[in-house]
Amino acid sequence: MIRRRKIAIVGLGLIGGSLGKSLGNLHYTGKIIGVDANQNHCDKAIELGIVEECMNLEDAVNAVDVIVLATPVNSIVKILPIILDKVEDQVVFDVGSTKKEIIDSVASHPKRGRFVACHPMSGTEFSGPEAAIEGLFKDSYNVICNSDDSDLDALTIVKSLCEDLGMKLLYQDAEAHDTHVAYVSHISHISAFALALTVLNKEQSEQQIFQLASGGFESSVRLAKSNPQTWAPIFAQNRDAVLDVLDEHITVLSQFRTLIIKKDWEVFGEMMGKANEIKRILNNDN
Amino acid sequence: MIRRRKIAIVGLGLIGGSLGKSLGNLHYTGKIIGVDANQNHCDKAIELGIVEECMNLEDAVNAVDVIVLATPVNSIVKILPIILDKVEDQVVFDVGSTKKEIIDSVASHPKRGRFVACHPMSGTEFSGPEAAIEGLFKDSYNVICNSDDSDLDALTIVKSLCEDLGMKLLYQDAEAHDTHVAYVSHISHISAFALALTVLNKEQSEQQIFQLASGGFESSVRLAKSNPQTWAPIFAQNRDAVLDVLDEHITVLSQFRTLIIKKDWEVFGEMMGKANEIKRILNNDN
Repeated sequence: MIRRRKIAIVGLGLIGGSLGKSLGNLHYTGKIIGVDANQNHCDKAIELGIVEECMNLEDAVNAVDVIVLATPVNSIVKILPIILDKVEDQVVFDVGSTKKEIIDSVASHPKRGRFVACHPMSGTEFSGPEAAIEGLFKDSYNVICNSDDSDLDALTIVKSLCEDLGMKLLYQDAEAHDTHVAYVSHISHISAFALALTVLNKEQSEQQIFQLASGGFESSVRLAKSNPQTWAPIFAQNRDAVLDVLDEHITVLSQFRTLIIKKDWEVFGEMMGKANEIKRILNNDN
Repeated sequence: MIRRRKIAIVGLGLIGGSLGKSLGNLHYTGKIIGVDANQNHCDKAIELGIVEECMNLEDAVNAVDVIVLATPVNSIVKILPIILDKVEDQVVFDVGSTKKEIIDSVASHPKRGRFVACHPMSGTEFSGPEAAIEGLFKDSYNVICNSDDSDLDALTIVKSLCEDLGMKLLYQDAEAHDTHVAYVSHISHISAFALALTVLNKEQSEQQIFQLASGGFESSVRLAKSNPQTWAPIFAQNRDAVLDVLDEHITVLSQFRTLIIKKDWEVFGEMMGKANEIKRILNNDN
């Protein structure tokens, strides 16, 4: 018989909330307990059926078998060592968008083995428990980093939970992970924030500027709705990789700029043709 | 009784094709004739029911009441004066993404009044007749530029056709239009092309770089699938406005870059908070 494990979710925002909603009806899961410094988030999470009850961190750690850390990444590096100080055989995993600093924060902790470093590759531009979506993780990848440093039974528990959520698993080194997400996630956010600001700045002198905005604009800037409290700490922890990618992105934009100045539409067209290769990656439509 | 008008669609790509599909069943429309230099597009458009038959440009102009120009904008400036040379009381309108050069190309033409300069604010990143979508224009804006230079009856015909398609109408000066679309459409395309290239360049040394790409990345780069043959001429015709917006966008990205170098996450967070204001514009979800 499968043991139905009690789970504590620390941080009841988009990701923590979606985990609560998605875990709720699974055969794996016993009671789900919430922890959040924001009392409104606790009340809302109970009201929305994301968690059954809320507790303070210490009581929650003692009451459950699995602890999920879904707070902003600057908070994860603070809370994780404190939680590992308290655990006996519980399993702790995080869902933060950076991995190296988080793993480094407990590198020499005697309970390091109880921790599994995770990054589920799903999300939306919205935040808070109201943004939680049941099934958010289905068919997405969960990246597990430096899995050799986790105890085998802790890994097994996280893997079976991922399976129950319909997730696929990937294993990566934390540094490689952080570089990769700088390219395929963090730079997209910076680009969207910058694009939104560019047009919002213009709106101050041209108030009708958004009248002609349609689907293409919306898709380019939708990530600019993302929560700064989530994203500033991500950029801070992944600073060096983000800086490299941003430099490369500005370089490509500057090449386009030079071609526009020169009216070299032939090479401009060739570069767009190369960019079209992205169809090979985004192959889930047409 | 409403007269059912014969229509020629010149250029059977995404926009021309979608117009054919969308007009097909309207009470306004009589026969729909296609014109395209690419015989494959003609065959495909007939096969898909976008047009009833295809003709050469001259025969089509003589056979219809309304001529739609849906070729790339560099082709529109060449064909439009030739068509106006041939028209008597027919109405000609274009659907190009730039307006000033197109309008300038027939500014002193004796038949200028038969031309209505249009830009329907809808599209997708796909191209060719296979990409045509019935209903693509429903609930979108059609921008009519410099409408004072069009004959009243020509305007009335275009307006009633737009109504039949479920479009809303906006009237703008061509220069204002071109500046506005540089901000809310053209820069989004350049940004997506550049983002796609940035990551594709990295893929040459890190082959697994796209493994972690998820919805956020996809939404940021989807416009990078757009057709260079459509877009190089748009950037060429709207060069000065596009250059201004690209400079402003690079400036904002460089500000982010400096804040990252300085580790000034507070100001970085404030800028992201300002970018969040885009929620006010993109208000059709959450």
